[in-house]
Amino acid sequence: MLDQALNHARANRERHLTELIEWLSIPSVSTLPEHKGDVFHAATWAQEVLRAMGVQDVRLEETPGSPIVYAERSGQDAPTLLVYGHFDVQPVDPIDEWKYSPFEPHIEGDNLYARGASDDKGQAYAVLAALESYLKTSEELPVNIKVLLEGEEEITSPNLFPYIRQNAKQLASNAILIADQDMLDPQHPVLMYGLRGIVYVEIEIRGPERDLHSGTFGGSVDNPFNVLSRLLASLQDGKTRRVLIPGFYDSVVELKGEERDLIAQAPINDQVGLHFTGAPALAGERGYSLAERISVRPTLEIHGIAGGFTGEGEKTVIPSRATAKVSMRLVPNQSPDEIIESLRSHLQNILPDTVSLDFRVLGKASPVKIDYNAPAVKTAGLAYERGFGVKPVYLRGGGSLPIVGQMIETLSPSEGEPIPVVMIGFGLPDDRTHAPNEKFHLPNFYRGVETVIHYLDLFSKTGGK
Amino acid sequence: MLDQALNHARANRERHLTELIEWLSIPSVSTLPEHKGDVFHAATWAQEVLRAMGVQDVRLEETPGSPIVYAERSGQDAPTLLVYGHFDVQPVDPIDEWKYSPFEPHIEGDNLYARGASDDKGQAYAVLAALESYLKTSEELPVNIKVLLEGEEEITSPNLFPYIRQNAKQLASNAILIADQDMLDPQHPVLMYGLRGIVYVEIEIRGPERDLHSGTFGGSVDNPFNVLSRLLASLQDGKTRRVLIPGFYDSVVELKGEERDLIAQAPINDQVGLHFTGAPALAGERGYSLAERISVRPTLEIHGIAGGFTGEGEKTVIPSRATAKVSMRLVPNQSPDEIIESLRSHLQNILPDTVSLDFRVLGKASPVKIDYNAPAVKTAGLAYERGFGVKPVYLRGGGSLPIVGQMIETLSPSEGEPIPVVMIGFGLPDDRTHAPNEKFHLPNFYRGVETVIHYLDLFSKTGGK
Repeated sequence: MLDQALNHARANRERHLTELIEWLSIPSVSTLPEHKGDVFHAATWAQEVLRAMGVQDVRLEETPGSPIVYAERSGQDAPTLLVYGHFDVQPVDPIDEWKYSPFEPHIEGDNLYARGASDDKGQAYAVLAALESYLKTSEELPVNIKVLLEGEEEITSPNLFPYIRQNAKQLASNAILIADQDMLDPQHPVLMYGLRGIVYVEIEIRGPERDLHSGTFGGSVDNPFNVLSRLLASLQDGKTRRVLIPGFYDSVVELKGEERDLIAQAPINDQVGLHFTGAPALAGERGYSLAERISVRPTLEIHGIAGGFTGEGEKTVIPSRATAKVSMRLVPNQSPDEIIESLRSHLQNILPDTVSLDFRVLGKASPVKIDYNAPAVKTAGLAYERGFGVKPVYLRGGGSLPIVGQMIETLSPSEGEPIPVVMIGFGLPDDRTHAPNEKFHLPNFYRGVETVIHYLDLFSKTGGK
Repeated sequence: MLDQALNHARANRERHLTELIEWLSIPSVSTLPEHKGDVFHAATWAQEVLRAMGVQDVRLEETPGSPIVYAERSGQDAPTLLVYGHFDVQPVDPIDEWKYSPFEPHIEGDNLYARGASDDKGQAYAVLAALESYLKTSEELPVNIKVLLEGEEEITSPNLFPYIRQNAKQLASNAILIADQDMLDPQHPVLMYGLRGIVYVEIEIRGPERDLHSGTFGGSVDNPFNVLSRLLASLQDGKTRRVLIPGFYDSVVELKGEERDLIAQAPINDQVGLHFTGAPALAGERGYSLAERISVRPTLEIHGIAGGFTGEGEKTVIPSRATAKVSMRLVPNQSPDEIIESLRSHLQNILPDTVSLDFRVLGKASPVKIDYNAPAVKTAGLAYERGFGVKPVYLRGGGSLPIVGQMIETLSPSEGEPIPVVMIGFGLPDDRTHAPNEKFHLPNFYRGVETVIHYLDLFSKTGGK
């Protein structure tokens, strides 16, 4: 059964590529209302592909936004795997910087160029191609499968979580598989067993009622930008790069020896960091390695500051307000709500009475840590070895996927261990997801299909444990 | 001669207003290249008005930028007064906040709304109307007059100073009159006997080569905004509001008793300050009164910070660069060049090696102090008394006019006292110069015309001394 599926996948590479190109040609940009029909089209396309491979139970689940594609093939005496992916894509701006039209996929050497090629249609389709490889050769799958594909991931999944909560029983599974991430390079696939959380806020300082001339009024009032600079400077130590918000580290779980060793094995060193960032020198929290700093340690970033005058030349204005966008990446067991309150009260405590503060929370997500010793996760390591010929790197991801924490919270059994989420992926750091000239490395695509075929086989033997 | 001129001014108020409205309708924004033609148009407009009132010698002096209008009517056995004003205006952003279109002047009650109404077309035109009032009634002026109007004041007069230096002999005068400032309120005109200097710089921090995703890369590099916040916070003490650049106060001349008493007489108190700024509370350098802080003490202001993401919602970017606009107001005897070097070396000293610094000087001007006992200045006090019915308040101005220091340096006689610069003005603190809804208080306009008429009369008797 396994061998036949692998043979099918190898024999059908060209057809799979053609089918993926078809999906990529649908401009399913979820942010833009004018593409609502295209997002719907990308959903029906997936429905048809699932039906054609022999999955009869495929539904378009209506939501207040775009439909969710839900497919199920179960009833076997075997463990159940829930597969998640998304078929919506990021906008294409700036369009002039694309070498090829973003929705007319183009192959150049080993790469397929198109918006969504790597994030996430190419990776989601690799999972579908693996299912097909079993169904077309054995007419069955080695495990029970539930497929959940959404069209709103790039707009923070406003309708997926309500759907999961309302359908938790239907979605009950032994593990969740998500293929939507990068490898370190073509030789280093990654088994991601955690994610950082995030808190994203806007801090607005309001001083004088209107913009004032700095000649006439300079010396009479606090300038909101001067005050904001002091507030922002109070958030991070310039030497240790530690976050200075009182209580910020109280709940942080320090790495234990075994996990520290695991992360130390990742081929991430300062030379790699300098290469990818192009910074004059690296920086980060004192006392931690680069791999630790970008995955298991919390951070604080200022993303931009609005207000005042930023045009050409000079304008001598005391702006009436200044607004900073600030986010913090969180790690287990930091609570987004507690961090929000710590930040808010720290700012209120040091705020002078010469200005007022407007504090707005724009987004938040909990950090996630998955037991890398859970059988469903270990099995994925073995599947990578068979698909790519190398052991994967074990890492906790530095980014944040709100839906992962939400799925763990909602779909874990009421007793015992939480449901394991298996995060794999076949993208590369230079795939330019969210940017012009997004691409997908085709050898990774084919290896990805085989990795998923192996995973289904291995999961049928261990996934129920 | 005086009475006839005053009568003419009173009888022609409506026509003068109509003429001013015509000038204000020309969008002579000097900062914006697309308005170059309009700045030129505002120059020819002034030329025609001067000719129409009987000044035959009016030239448009070409410069590498916009033309200077120079007019002269001299040859009498009388003292000579050089009059300076400007016909360019600030940009109008943010345009949505204007009640009326900025270049379609609108009268509402006692106020005339238009960009440039107060700064400086309205005030410059008041001087022209005073000249006209003599010329149309007596066919002569009580003094020799040289008129110098420029179209580049709002972009720091790059071509005026070279012109003055090259034409110092032609411009030789007994005093210089400038009407381009505010009164304290409609009852309190101001005789301004000094100006703060200024240094305006741009501080750019460059970190990673490109914008980075804060999930993937957060913890690996210093964020230029985080670094910039610390640099900016290091420039001013949050409690005393003293500037913390080493050596900043070394050359500052502390107020002596007589002058401190003079400034203490100004009807400037915290209630007035709160009214005009609308700030929740006032602030400024500890140990000095409000009147002192806005006139004879140096300040530091951040005007805006560019780079990164400031749109709606969340974008998790570590920006590759961040740029702040910062200016300092200087007082006698601070040297702009020394302050620039102190700031530059302070920033270099505390800059981490994870980023680079680009430090650009956008503008500078020396502080100025004028002898308030000089006859030409005292005479202006008397003219104010006759024009407004009250003695003026003696103040040193908080703003900066580079050209004043440059004129004193270039046009003072080689021996004896420096040339007195008489700074008067008819604007109000709530005129919103440089901001949306700029306006000019029309009763001040008419009193201003009469004040200049009186000044010319009084100056003919004392100005040569």
